[in-house]
Amino acid sequence: MNKMKDLRPIIWNDNKKELILIDQRKLPHKLEYFVCKNYKDVAYAIKDMVVRGAPAIGVTAGYGMALAEINGDDIYKAYNTLRNTRPTAVNLFWALDRCLKAYNEGRSILEEAKKIHEEDIETCKKIGMIGEKLIEDGDTILTHCNAGALATSAYGTALSVIRFAYYNGKKIKVIADETRPRLQGAKLTAFELNYEGIPVKVITDNTAGFLMQKGEIDKIIVGADRILADGTVYNKIGTYSLAVLAKYHGIPFYVAAPLSTFDLKSSEKDVIIEERDEKEVAYIDGIRIVPEGVNCYNYAFDKTPPDLITAIITEKGIIKPKKEEILRLF
Amino acid sequence: MNKMKDLRPIIWNDNKKELILIDQRKLPHKLEYFVCKNYKDVAYAIKDMVVRGAPAIGVTAGYGMALAEINGDDIYKAYNTLRNTRPTAVNLFWALDRCLKAYNEGRSILEEAKKIHEEDIETCKKIGMIGEKLIEDGDTILTHCNAGALATSAYGTALSVIRFAYYNGKKIKVIADETRPRLQGAKLTAFELNYEGIPVKVITDNTAGFLMQKGEIDKIIVGADRILADGTVYNKIGTYSLAVLAKYHGIPFYVAAPLSTFDLKSSEKDVIIEERDEKEVAYIDGIRIVPEGVNCYNYAFDKTPPDLITAIITEKGIIKPKKEEILRLF
Repeated sequence: MNKMKDLRPIIWNDNKKELILIDQRKLPHKLEYFVCKNYKDVAYAIKDMVVRGAPAIGVTAGYGMALAEINGDDIYKAYNTLRNTRPTAVNLFWALDRCLKAYNEGRSILEEAKKIHEEDIETCKKIGMIGEKLIEDGDTILTHCNAGALATSAYGTALSVIRFAYYNGKKIKVIADETRPRLQGAKLTAFELNYEGIPVKVITDNTAGFLMQKGEIDKIIVGADRILADGTVYNKIGTYSLAVLAKYHGIPFYVAAPLSTFDLKSSEKDVIIEERDEKEVAYIDGIRIVPEGVNCYNYAFDKTPPDLITAIITEKGIIKPKKEEILRLF
Repeated sequence: MNKMKDLRPIIWNDNKKELILIDQRKLPHKLEYFVCKNYKDVAYAIKDMVVRGAPAIGVTAGYGMALAEINGDDIYKAYNTLRNTRPTAVNLFWALDRCLKAYNEGRSILEEAKKIHEEDIETCKKIGMIGEKLIEDGDTILTHCNAGALATSAYGTALSVIRFAYYNGKKIKVIADETRPRLQGAKLTAFELNYEGIPVKVITDNTAGFLMQKGEIDKIIVGADRILADGTVYNKIGTYSLAVLAKYHGIPFYVAAPLSTFDLKSSEKDVIIEERDEKEVAYIDGIRIVPEGVNCYNYAFDKTPPDLITAIITEKGIIKPKKEEILRLF
């Protein structure tokens, strides 16, 4: 299980008081680090997707607040800057609010950020240990985007379930959707799983339905960027299509996420689905694929209604996407 | 309507006795031509996708047979070489069989190839004129891959319907799936439509479901590589997922194809779904996106059952995907 502990995208250097992030824009070919010395570096890292994945964004933002404290910056300004980096994943707001509360109560922001970080590791571990019971020996599991160690502090959410199943001796195979436009499935999920020797194959996003039709997918597990009280899940664009296809084929569709991803206060109309620069679609690794003069849509997330979700795997147990079961967790 | 007649991917030069193809591998950035002087050049052009699209492959293969005749090559050897270039689109076999029959009956293969070519232009025109009646003013139409002029001799199949609707004054918008791995939607469909001023936007393949959920897609039209007597449609990978999503959202799902795409003799077990080199998935425009050591699946086509198809648009009319209606066409 050693390798399982290796991949840590967020490292706090207590001596130098700096935040070290794996630069996920450079993966899978280069393992480079991006060092943040102040909250503006952190805001840039979140916005430009040096770090991504709802839980990882939350942990990173916490350290951004800590850096503002250490550097004597205006805490409210740092809070607002960090809050405006990305709109959809709720863990960002959750972590920032915790740090602001600590500050207002006269506690150390850095200590709070470290606590968020440590809790996230424990939480992801629990999600894996609890969720792996859903996986059977011989399963082929489809996943979308990267809900892995790289999207969290360690282990991942969806990939934590897969990791624990694998390390508990279940012979599983993983199919990773490449996940256009940013290709987190091809670049990050394939990298993570291959790094640990977990069998993984990459497909284009439009191949998932065909594999389901062929009977080659036993289960689907994805992460989440925000879950509402009624069980509506916001996650990487393409999740909704997979959920519809899963329903049509009678394949279980699981969402793995920590409690920090739940947003009990908002309703659908409050949630902003981020539209990113259309260049992410028009260019791949710097090469333009769309003719000049043609525009693209680039929605980063989509919305999956609860009736398409078999169950949600949290650190406090596996629940149905129903209001009463969700509220009972808190 | 002048521009509509412009885009011709297949040109026979009768003086030089050579076949000139638009090199579709270079689009949308460069409009270059690939010249075939013998049947082996033609086989290469089909296999490497200099030319692609079921009707265009058929027409091209016909000229390949003609070049074998002109150059005094072994006609049966040429036939077999051309037949083994790609396995799924049935128009290839249909055109080759027509040319072989002409040869065996002592007729000129070149004349037969020219006839196939001219017929394809007329056929595509009819598909457009017939199919455009299904399109309403203000429709937003989703299409997948490229079933356009570039996939045929002119006009296209799915895009012929769109063209005729547009030139008949209907205010329509087109959404083009980028269509990984070869990106024919982003590169070819967007190029074709933009060239004629027909409004088009490109999306990643995994965005289609979300746009349907948002109510932004009124109709879906795709082409076909092979249609069985029971109405089962083989087409570019991703077509099946779109058909399932269309059904779920109650959106009409149309297939536009000439009679030469119908295969009345085969059943599902006879159809080979081409698996192409996995490098097409692992690399985009020469850049590796998947970690070294990780494999990919690269199915080029998928299978859509008739119950997911609203209607099939042919040059002889619009039919339901039912055996009795299909057989009546022949």
